[in-house]
Amino acid sequence: MTEKVDLAAKLALFDEPWQPRIVARLNDYKVMVVKLRGEFVWHSHAETDDFFLVLDGRLTIQLRDRDVELGPGEMFVVPRGVEHRPVSEEGASALLIEPEETVNTGDAGGPLTTEAREI
Amino acid sequence: MTEKVDLAAKLALFDEPWQPRIVARLNDYKVMVVKLRGEFVWHSHAETDDFFLVLDGRLTIQLRDRDVELGPGEMFVVPRGVEHRPVSEEGASALLIEPEETVNTGDAGGPLTTEAREI
Repeated sequence: MTEKVDLAAKLALFDEPWQPRIVARLNDYKVMVVKLRGEFVWHSHAETDDFFLVLDGRLTIQLRDRDVELGPGEMFVVPRGVEHRPVSEEGASALLIEPEETVNTGDAGGPLTTEAREI
Repeated sequence: MTEKVDLAAKLALFDEPWQPRIVARLNDYKVMVVKLRGEFVWHSHAETDDFFLVLDGRLTIQLRDRDVELGPGEMFVVPRGVEHRPVSEEGASALLIEPEETVNTGDAGGPLTTEAREI
């Protein structure tokens, strides 16, 4: 049986940016928390939309034609196939929800590619 | 193209409890905000897990063998098929995520059954 999840308590357990941690599962989706600091890579996910809910700090999701600026309590769903780059100068934390098999760097690959693990 | 969603701003647009409002879509899931006040009905969803993230207030998710007490920033996924009843004496707001075809009262039906609409 699952337990409740205190998102702030989970976020207090690690500090590395761009390393999502799985805190729950919803059907075949993984529910994750992540810290974001600096610039991620431009990428897209051909197979899925990409859910972001900012929990603290400020996050910019750069799209090719505009920036989406998010603060705490603000969410954005990047449509499948749309190139985006998360950027946070001051640092932010977010809730992410993606199908289990989704790769964090999407089609881009590279050194920031990582597999989320449970926390 | 989708826009960002300020969850508090969406919640400020209505007051009726147990009437989820769709604020975004994630693949074939609906992302909703809801206000909870008083007692909902015991029900279960045979086909899906049920995601709750409390945004403000306090929410109890009663299960047949225990209560799960949630405050702001705390989440719980009710596994598919598990009977539950959301209860909030003081009132609460939450983010819900469910497959598009999910009915709010699950197998229970009754007068609280409603179809979420976009806001």
